[in-house]
Amino acid sequence: MRMKHKSWSEPYLLEHSEIVKDIKSQDDVKAILKDKVALEIGTGRGNFILGMAKKYPSILWIGIEMNVDALAICAKKIVESGLKNVVLIRQNFILISEYFLSESIDNIYLNFSDPWPKKRHHKRRLTSSMFLSEYRRILKTDGSIIQKTDNEQLFDCSLVEFELGKWQIVYSDRNYIFDEENDVMTEYERKFRELGQPIYRLIAK
Amino acid sequence: MRMKHKSWSEPYLLEHSEIVKDIKSQDDVKAILKDKVALEIGTGRGNFILGMAKKYPSILWIGIEMNVDALAICAKKIVESGLKNVVLIRQNFILISEYFLSESIDNIYLNFSDPWPKKRHHKRRLTSSMFLSEYRRILKTDGSIIQKTDNEQLFDCSLVEFELGKWQIVYSDRNYIFDEENDVMTEYERKFRELGQPIYRLIAK
Repeated sequence: MRMKHKSWSEPYLLEHSEIVKDIKSQDDVKAILKDKVALEIGTGRGNFILGMAKKYPSILWIGIEMNVDALAICAKKIVESGLKNVVLIRQNFILISEYFLSESIDNIYLNFSDPWPKKRHHKRRLTSSMFLSEYRRILKTDGSIIQKTDNEQLFDCSLVEFELGKWQIVYSDRNYIFDEENDVMTEYERKFRELGQPIYRLIAK
Repeated sequence: MRMKHKSWSEPYLLEHSEIVKDIKSQDDVKAILKDKVALEIGTGRGNFILGMAKKYPSILWIGIEMNVDALAICAKKIVESGLKNVVLIRQNFILISEYFLSESIDNIYLNFSDPWPKKRHHKRRLTSSMFLSEYRRILKTDGSIIQKTDNEQLFDCSLVEFELGKWQIVYSDRNYIFDEENDVMTEYERKFRELGQPIYRLIAK
């Protein structure tokens, strides 16, 4: 089947770079395959996940958030940004975690999660043993959990839980100097930093 | 940060199902992760890849096609269909194959490829040994090549190349009855079938 040359072909292809990709490096292919997947549990208004999705376009970012209003604000920002590598889930992670395949996620981000200070609520913390064992199952072998919080008690308890679960703490900082190049500030983080409060950060593998 | 309830939140989230996903099964997560990747080399006007992308929405479909006019027609169909799981590359596969990571592709489809009948052109065939060794590298361990052609000589030579390359031919058919449920007809295939010509098909692992 011979094709007649069409004058609209070239401009049409250039206009639709969301579909027609130019491959000049391994990163270009990685950007198509989105072979890296990051999960943020508790996405809030989405400052973090949007900033990270912009910084790392070859990673697929999945945000989980229960609050419908926060989620709507986040969804609106995604629509307006035109980013195609972020999706959101409005469900409780622990109720849907079984649907995630084993070893399918590269990194899990926990940013300023609810500290649930009352003892009877400790199980609800995103670093309780129940959550950690789900994270272990869905993380790839070299995967990480990256946690930031302003809450010292939550930080201390998280460290204990990771150690009990035989995780390796590869980084732990009680006064985290913001890493502009590789990290994005959340709404909470900006607030706490303005108040001069320390930010705690850990990475567990 | 307390959120004031916004009346637009719920309808906005429902309107943007391309971003906000409902997870009810493992397949819903697979559809987000697009952890399966299929490659068609020589996509033409795209009947096959579009049909397959509709049939298998949780697979990411990558079409490679050099002809700018065929590619533009294909891109237009993708835009009009609203499909988000197809991307196109307008480059020569062998010149960009190095950018594909090892074991990153599940299936490679070769549909009615140019038979290059002259002996000095045999190297250009998509089943020549140079191509087969690239396919081997980028295919996952359980990956397959699925070839359809109307050209008996190309089919025979392909079988020989696969055997020389120690591939396993798991399926081979010299009069392939179209499998409506799992396959999609290409433009060429429809033409040849209307003329009563046999279609050859093989699957190599």
